[in-house]
Amino acid sequence: MKMSYVLLILFAFSISASAQEKTTPTAQPDVWRYSLIDAESQTHLEEFSLSNLDLPETGDAKWSITMKTLAGGKQDGVRFISVVHENLSFSVIPTRGLSIYEVKSGDVRLGWDSPIKEHVHPQYINLDSRGGLGWLDGFNEWMVRCGLEYAGHPGLDEFTTNTGDAGTMDLTLHGKVGNIPASTVEVLIEKKSPHRIHIRGVVHERLFFGPKLMLATDLSTVPGEASLRVHDTVTNLGASLQEMQLIYHANYGRGLLEKGAKVFAPVNLISPMNDHAAKAMTTWDTYQEPTPGFVEEVFLIHPYANPKGQTGVLLQNANGDRGSSIHWNVKELPYLTIWKNTVAEADGYVTGLEPATGFPYNRKVEREAGRVPVLEPGASRSFTLDYHLHKDEESVKQVQQQIKAYQGIRPTTVENRPLSQ
Amino acid sequence: MKMSYVLLILFAFSISASAQEKTTPTAQPDVWRYSLIDAESQTHLEEFSLSNLDLPETGDAKWSITMKTLAGGKQDGVRFISVVHENLSFSVIPTRGLSIYEVKSGDVRLGWDSPIKEHVHPQYINLDSRGGLGWLDGFNEWMVRCGLEYAGHPGLDEFTTNTGDAGTMDLTLHGKVGNIPASTVEVLIEKKSPHRIHIRGVVHERLFFGPKLMLATDLSTVPGEASLRVHDTVTNLGASLQEMQLIYHANYGRGLLEKGAKVFAPVNLISPMNDHAAKAMTTWDTYQEPTPGFVEEVFLIHPYANPKGQTGVLLQNANGDRGSSIHWNVKELPYLTIWKNTVAEADGYVTGLEPATGFPYNRKVEREAGRVPVLEPGASRSFTLDYHLHKDEESVKQVQQQIKAYQGIRPTTVENRPLSQ
Amino acid sequence: MKMSYVLLILFAFSISASAQEKTTPTAQPDVWRYSLIDAESQTHLEEFSLSNLDLPETGDAKWSITMKTLAGGKQDGVRFISVVHENLSFSVIPTRGLSIYEVKSGDVRLGWDSPIKEHVHPQYINLDSRGGLGWLDGFNEWMVRCGLEYAGHPGLDEFTTNTGDAGTMDLTLHGKVGNIPASTVEVLIEKKSPHRIHIRGVVHERLFFGPKLMLATDLSTVPGEASLRVHDTVTNLGASLQEMQLIYHANYGRGLLEKGAKVFAPVNLISPMNDHAAKAMTTWDTYQEPTPGFVEEVFLIHPYANPKGQTGVLLQNANGDRGSSIHWNVKELPYLTIWKNTVAEADGYVTGLEPATGFPYNRKVEREAGRVPVLEPGASRSFTLDYHLHKDEESVKQVQQQIKAYQGIRPTTVENRPLSQ
Repeated sequence: MKMSYVLLILFAFSISASAQEKTTPTAQPDVWRYSLIDAESQTHLEEFSLSNLDLPETGDAKWSITMKTLAGGKQDGVRFISVVHENLSFSVIPTRGLSIYEVKSGDVRLGWDSPIKEHVHPQYINLDSRGGLGWLDGFNEWMVRCGLEYAGHPGLDEFTTNTGDAGTMDLTLHGKVGNIPASTVEVLIEKKSPHRIHIRGVVHERLFFGPKLMLATDLSTVPGEASLRVHDTVTNLGASLQEMQLIYHANYGRGLLEKGAKVFAPVNLISPMNDHAAKAMTTWDTYQEPTPGFVEEVFLIHPYANPKGQTGVLLQNANGDRGSSIHWNVKELPYLTIWKNTVAEADGYVTGLEPATGFPYNRKVEREAGRVPVLEPGASRSFTLDYHLHKDEESVKQVQQQIKAYQGIRPTTVENRPLSQ
Repeated sequence: MKMSYVLLILFAFSISASAQEKTTPTAQPDVWRYSLIDAESQTHLEEFSLSNLDLPETGDAKWSITMKTLAGGKQDGVRFISVVHENLSFSVIPTRGLSIYEVKSGDVRLGWDSPIKEHVHPQYINLDSRGGLGWLDGFNEWMVRCGLEYAGHPGLDEFTTNTGDAGTMDLTLHGKVGNIPASTVEVLIEKKSPHRIHIRGVVHERLFFGPKLMLATDLSTVPGEASLRVHDTVTNLGASLQEMQLIYHANYGRGLLEKGAKVFAPVNLISPMNDHAAKAMTTWDTYQEPTPGFVEEVFLIHPYANPKGQTGVLLQNANGDRGSSIHWNVKELPYLTIWKNTVAEADGYVTGLEPATGFPYNRKVEREAGRVPVLEPGASRSFTLDYHLHKDEESVKQVQQQIKAYQGIRPTTVENRPLSQ
Repeated sequence: MKMSYVLLILFAFSISASAQEKTTPTAQPDVWRYSLIDAESQTHLEEFSLSNLDLPETGDAKWSITMKTLAGGKQDGVRFISVVHENLSFSVIPTRGLSIYEVKSGDVRLGWDSPIKEHVHPQYINLDSRGGLGWLDGFNEWMVRCGLEYAGHPGLDEFTTNTGDAGTMDLTLHGKVGNIPASTVEVLIEKKSPHRIHIRGVVHERLFFGPKLMLATDLSTVPGEASLRVHDTVTNLGASLQEMQLIYHANYGRGLLEKGAKVFAPVNLISPMNDHAAKAMTTWDTYQEPTPGFVEEVFLIHPYANPKGQTGVLLQNANGDRGSSIHWNVKELPYLTIWKNTVAEADGYVTGLEPATGFPYNRKVEREAGRVPVLEPGASRSFTLDYHLHKDEESVKQVQQQIKAYQGIRPTTVENRPLSQ
């Protein structure tokens, strides 16, 4: 019997290769830096691993970063990065737009059990299929960015053709960026204690006669802390004004979501996305058990913030002793969408907490509502989101208080009808 | 000159790897089992080979199973499995939904000479292209399954959207399953004589807000016998009722198909698929030579079966000394389609014998005619087809008799007009 | 730290492999021949290199041919060939239809700075996206062929379905051939001095119930000469009459294109492609600096030729001391399109010189105008284009004279309105 197993080969070589590569971190004053993928210089590792043992200068904290290449079914060739330290682990998928698959701390898990089990390579995604719903064929991450040219519902929008005339374009659900492989990925470890770990990468969404938008992301965590920071910058590399949209579509299932789980947010105005959600306005912030036949409900929130613009949202379990919060600035992301999809477990029991530049309507609706940012040539916008995992009642209560403080004594307006359609 | 040939590398390693891997068959009481692809455990061999020499316990029979990874043109990365024993050989393509490329026994060949010469990787197939005819870009197998969500002609169907409303969807020709790479593939050899050889695999056709259908196939042959069994199970892994369709699209060209070749089937009712086929009802069961400009004719059959439901169809050559038959149960597959496409050789001279859950109309037509099975959540349906190769006049006559026995003295109704449109 | 870098592995093996492979050139009387990719025989090199040092029989001239496999972003797995000799270098992309990325001689460069920076693997191109403009997602080559079934603008055309009825099809911009990986690629070195170097390859554009068109290309250069010959043959491998279209879309940016750059062509008749270009008829042959917001202008030329059919076009820089010319036969390619797209540098400052079988209207328009060639079953058409790089004023003047000679004293007709729409 003859078996030629490519991973075996890679393993066989990794021994000698790792010896040669021990000294690769680029000399930089503040960080140790490792390049995993770089389209320009033709760097593209199949595997990578680095841990505190390789950098004794980082002290006693234990941490590791590994990248592997997946195989089988629709995930052949997909790069998958795992970052683990003593109080947090998270996984990032360079091949899928640097989406974050899962975050864990103790028994708190950010993620869900999608019916899509594999990490689907974009080669198998046809965004235009099923009337523009092809994005759903690969949807299983905890946090996927929707954008960058457009981020919401599929359907006809208008655009200017290369001949300068008015044209139309069929948008596809949640845009392209989640299905574009990263052009660069690097690992950085700060030399200064507490040695924050960064996964940095760039995804280009660029067309000839179309947008040239660049997403540069920095995902970072401090060894020992139960939190993850997402810091993104979107830049218009084209020479014309360019619209952009960005939704941070973070999805939560088993581990936090359950009957009696609850959302806390500082709500200025909340409205239903459609007539169906309108019937459920009184229960927008509580969850039911997995319910076969449940039809998704989407709620649109204008959140309050503190004078600096800081705001937040919390999802907690029924007992109130596990939770996860997101903190961000409304100057960067003025809107928050709550997606409730408490269907049967087999169909994907999940809720989404989605800070964004707008709401998930088709861009045509968003443009009319003034919720589509426009970038000047060369201009950038940055977005920072801090995700915290709360592992006991005290920590959950603390963040509840923080969110109440964002609201203060200001009233909440509940609209019982969709404000757009 | 420097040449880095990846197959050379694999070959170089296969020597040491095969030594290490000699003992990999999983310990199971009844079979020797080898995992070639498994998305969950990250198994994905580039090459594999196993033969009777590796398992002397299987006795005197000679057999071998090999898998290679194809390269060049549109077939880069496609896995291709060949099973050979003393009376039969067949090839399976995991990357293309575990379709069967070819079966051979002596000078009888199940297969055809499609103008598509390469084993096209699904990454190059856009099912939606050319008005939903993109499936044809890779069509060259002897037996390809059409399905699982839909299996027939492209065009508009209606579905229920994720918001519970009625929607529409453009179906694509013959569905998706033939262009989805297998998530698992394994080889099993029965420990008990006659040591039946199995290629088993799983293909998932799953969407968020859509079907979660799983095909589990078992392709098996007994060393020394000129026959192949296809045993499939389709399971609804979703939590809702789910329609399914399945057509076993088996295609025959040179080797059996020729002027004067003939089909035998126990026909209860036969009708033309459209007005064009209606003009050819008197010649539905005989074939002409390759004919440039021939327009395909499709005939739809409700076959008779014996009291247990067993039925069959035979294609024989002009001399009646070579043939191939399919036997199956009408409780599993109540319908049979005969596709005549006796075009010029360069365009693909071929006929299809297609036992199925329905006919190849658009699902909308099939649903109205009550020919679309619905699976309860968690429910399965199984399908078994036995393909035999007949290498002499006696064997052909024998199966003719068997098919006549299925019909008995019952009459055949010939409809001269399409019953659906 | 463990790093498994597949290129390292390949490099490690290339040493022993190259020893074994030194003698691989196929024995042929007139050429040394090396197979790099061959789908039929399962040849598919990851890397290749050959130089005059490997073939001392070629004498003093220095030349080299290398192939590498790209990685990162959207270019994972793309094969890239570079040919270099003392007076010319050019690069070819087998994975992208054997398009030519760039040609250089001294400081003259044929190529441009597209906003698309990576060599995009066809797996990431959906030609049907954005209303049929998906081709633009990978557009960055100096010379890309548009064709073979159709070559012009997207939009609805009519075709005959597999049932013989009239049908319609949405064409996609510039056709498919530029996004189909080559089925064969070989390198040939002529044994006879001056040892012309050839890159030969085959790309199949074939469908079941559709065209079976084969492009066989031969790209060749003589060591020491600043020119490149493209010799293509398109063959109809199907059994029916088959329409074909072919545009040689050669694109020029920085290096030649600048304010004051100029086109010379022997013009019989020139007309604008649309009303927008109609406003710019007086400046069709001169260029402006990069201009944000510039809307492309397309001019359609019926060129004059000499009695043998030879014609040519020249693009020169503002000083007239750098230029590039194309020479071809109007019996093969009767039409010439000039595409002016002098937009901002960031958006792709570029002009196209495009000898072709027709103009880039939708095939429906072209068919009505009688500009769509039809190939009989088995028939071929060949196309030869000679690209020269001119590195001083004298060479530029010489080719200007040649082009003037093609025109002679014959008049130019300028149509101020589009002749088709």
